[in-house]
Amino acid sequence: MFEAILAARERLEGQAHRTPVMTSRTLDERVGAAVHLKCENFQRMGAFKFRGAFNAVARIPVGDRPRGVVTFSSGNHAQAVALVGRMLDIPTTVIMPRDAPRIKRQATEGYGAEVRRYDPATTDRETLAREIQAQQGGIMIPPYDHPDVIAGQGTATLELHAQVGDLDLLLVPCGGGGLLSGSAVAARGLMPGCRVVGVEPELADDAARSFRTGVRQTVHNPPTIADGTRTPSLGRLTFPLIQDHVDDFATVSEAAIREAVRFLFYRLKLVVEPSGALGVAALLSGALKPRGRVGIILSGGNIDGPTMAKILQDEAD
Amino acid sequence: MFEAILAARERLEGQAHRTPVMTSRTLDERVGAAVHLKCENFQRMGAFKFRGAFNAVARIPVGDRPRGVVTFSSGNHAQAVALVGRMLDIPTTVIMPRDAPRIKRQATEGYGAEVRRYDPATTDRETLAREIQAQQGGIMIPPYDHPDVIAGQGTATLELHAQVGDLDLLLVPCGGGGLLSGSAVAARGLMPGCRVVGVEPELADDAARSFRTGVRQTVHNPPTIADGTRTPSLGRLTFPLIQDHVDDFATVSEAAIREAVRFLFYRLKLVVEPSGALGVAALLSGALKPRGRVGIILSGGNIDGPTMAKILQDEAD
Repeated sequence: MFEAILAARERLEGQAHRTPVMTSRTLDERVGAAVHLKCENFQRMGAFKFRGAFNAVARIPVGDRPRGVVTFSSGNHAQAVALVGRMLDIPTTVIMPRDAPRIKRQATEGYGAEVRRYDPATTDRETLAREIQAQQGGIMIPPYDHPDVIAGQGTATLELHAQVGDLDLLLVPCGGGGLLSGSAVAARGLMPGCRVVGVEPELADDAARSFRTGVRQTVHNPPTIADGTRTPSLGRLTFPLIQDHVDDFATVSEAAIREAVRFLFYRLKLVVEPSGALGVAALLSGALKPRGRVGIILSGGNIDGPTMAKILQDEAD
Repeated sequence: MFEAILAARERLEGQAHRTPVMTSRTLDERVGAAVHLKCENFQRMGAFKFRGAFNAVARIPVGDRPRGVVTFSSGNHAQAVALVGRMLDIPTTVIMPRDAPRIKRQATEGYGAEVRRYDPATTDRETLAREIQAQQGGIMIPPYDHPDVIAGQGTATLELHAQVGDLDLLLVPCGGGGLLSGSAVAARGLMPGCRVVGVEPELADDAARSFRTGVRQTVHNPPTIADGTRTPSLGRLTFPLIQDHVDDFATVSEAAIREAVRFLFYRLKLVVEPSGALGVAALLSGALKPRGRVGIILSGGNIDGPTMAKILQDEAD
């Protein structure tokens, strides 16, 4: 898998942004470590998901591309597949829950994808996606449980390492585990002494429980503000990679997530969506005691105006 | 003055952040030019004002420093002087209007300044500042009408030029004219072919009127959302520098300012205060037709939560 990440880096050259790394004296003083924030909120379409989607879609042989691509996603992977489809002139169909943030649905449609909405309380999205795929004959690029997607996501850590050197600790948000597994494999390959920790909302802690029990656990449409982590479980591919390469998990409260989004807004002047702020939430809340040089992947910045407005006004947390 | 800007750059080395320059494919497509955003919202204390304040305060002879520094400011200069005072161990007193954004007042107090509030409807801040200065014997560092302050502000354009090369057009927000005059002098010295345009809110267009009439015009506490431009007039030093080195002015509506703040939030994932978004507002609103390579100084990011919440929720502009 590490070789696949290196190959993905070549494929993404000139296509993905090399996102900047930001630091903050205030954050370092507050948590007692040197923190490096990898700003994937500045990635194309506003999240790391571009990396995996481009890597996976670009590997579809030219002769197969007219069949189109089908995927399911609560948001950022949907936008990523839609954008890559437009770039490579491949039709895309995206299955999206009715409660996905409006900004993500509109952006997906804006990139030219056909959006099919469903009710997550009553419908399993993977089943629905396979039905649609069977009808249309499209090629399925799932949001995380696909080797090319995982390899693409791992490139963010390659870049971070090239930008700031070895780290002692790497904090990565975890939904379905595509970013976390790719990041962990990349970190192992580059800096074996770096501790890799996945961060989840307490309300959606299926990965942490899976990691601790050794058995894949699930959640069902958890009511966390971190919409990127509402995935039902780790994947069949991501779970074993996480078992092999991740050192630990931390979980954070909804209040801690909101505080992290506010901190990034006021102190760093960065727009980061709740899922993207999980690593910062783990440090600010004390869920994790850092030491030395810390990397955090700020995974995305696609937050609805009303959601941000509520977080900013709700300062009594 | 150009030599003074070069000297200020030396003085600021290792003290001010070398802020990044961001670009956006979407912005470029929308306005038909290659736009380079100089992110002074990422400057220390969140605005370019750190540059001028540090340059001016650092030039106070060590023997005079115990007298302390006095200033008046609607916000960002206040924070800048307070932070520099803390860095250089100099006591600071700041005269601030009662309606200044809370985030700016709290940050100023947080850096250890003594804040003296006044009612801008009934009191002239410069007179009040001089009274306090006379009582306390402090050294006055005004927010813009001071050669060392102007020279410090000019360093942002030196950096932008070093980062991206020659520009055809440079857009700079204008309140009291410290940033604009410093930027214009720097641009003249480095790239004589670059057109320099000041941008003001329509509601606070005193500088544009002064520039056109050749006589310094005033406004009185204008009700613009761009609080950094609520200054009553250009200064005695900044006005002639602007007459000599600025090519033109553009003015923008309140709706255009809000739209620019939203655009920077949603598309660039940047937190920019209304005054800082004036250059982007001029382009997006069509107030100015750009060509070629454009530089815009995003002057600051210190926006109150409630103000941002209102801008994000008010999408029917």
